[in-house]
Amino acid sequence: MTLDAAPELPRISLDPANCPVRQVLDGIGDKWSILVMAALSVGSRRFSELRRDIPDVSQKMLTHTLRKLERDGLVERIVTPTAPPRVDYRLRPLGESLFLRLSGLAAWVIENRAEIDTARSSFDGQD
Amino acid sequence: MTLDAAPELPRISLDPANCPVRQVLDGIGDKWSILVMAALSVGSRRFSELRRDIPDVSQKMLTHTLRKLERDGLVERIVTPTAPPRVDYRLRPLGESLFLRLSGLAAWVIENRAEIDTARSSFDGQD
Repeated sequence: MTLDAAPELPRISLDPANCPVRQVLDGIGDKWSILVMAALSVGSRRFSELRRDIPDVSQKMLTHTLRKLERDGLVERIVTPTAPPRVDYRLRPLGESLFLRLSGLAAWVIENRAEIDTARSSFDGQD
Repeated sequence: MTLDAAPELPRISLDPANCPVRQVLDGIGDKWSILVMAALSVGSRRFSELRRDIPDVSQKMLTHTLRKLERDGLVERIVTPTAPPRVDYRLRPLGESLFLRLSGLAAWVIENRAEIDTARSSFDGQD
């Protein structure tokens, strides 16, 4: 099938093989990637600072997520040749522009949370 | 920590207990919910039509997802009292407005896919 609801997307497919919605979800939509980008949206951070910002991320998962974001061109790894070397991470312009879209989604949730809560109470009352 | 990068979100928290980014992901950001909203964005659909639109969703998962979307006030379940009764699903205005934000994200991916692919090739070439 194809869709024509969104102004920027005249026709999109839901076919698993060629579906931009799925590409969002599989490629960049994982929870840790979004939280790391959110943490970096205030400025560059060191690995240890990111671990403090996101208390429930494991060291292994944070390493994996940063590497994935770096590979996608969303995050830059900056090594300062001190002794020991200092490593900082920061959003590239591509990552900033993606995070802006994600923030729009978060803003939607904040704006509409009361309406969702009301709908839930009403639905649960029917059961 | 708090963030002040996005225009609509002066300060948001990444704390698991009170984080709008996490609320997006946990509440409405699951793959099947987004795909069902995408399928409904063209107009109302019956259960069997949704299964055709999203070939890899199971009957059980589609039932669960529709019920969750209905509970959140995003999707409306319309029963027409024919024999047998006919059941259609359609987006409520709340669901339409959420899907619009999600489409913006999908549009971002389409616009920036080439840049991400280039970054990946460059990163993989370094290894």
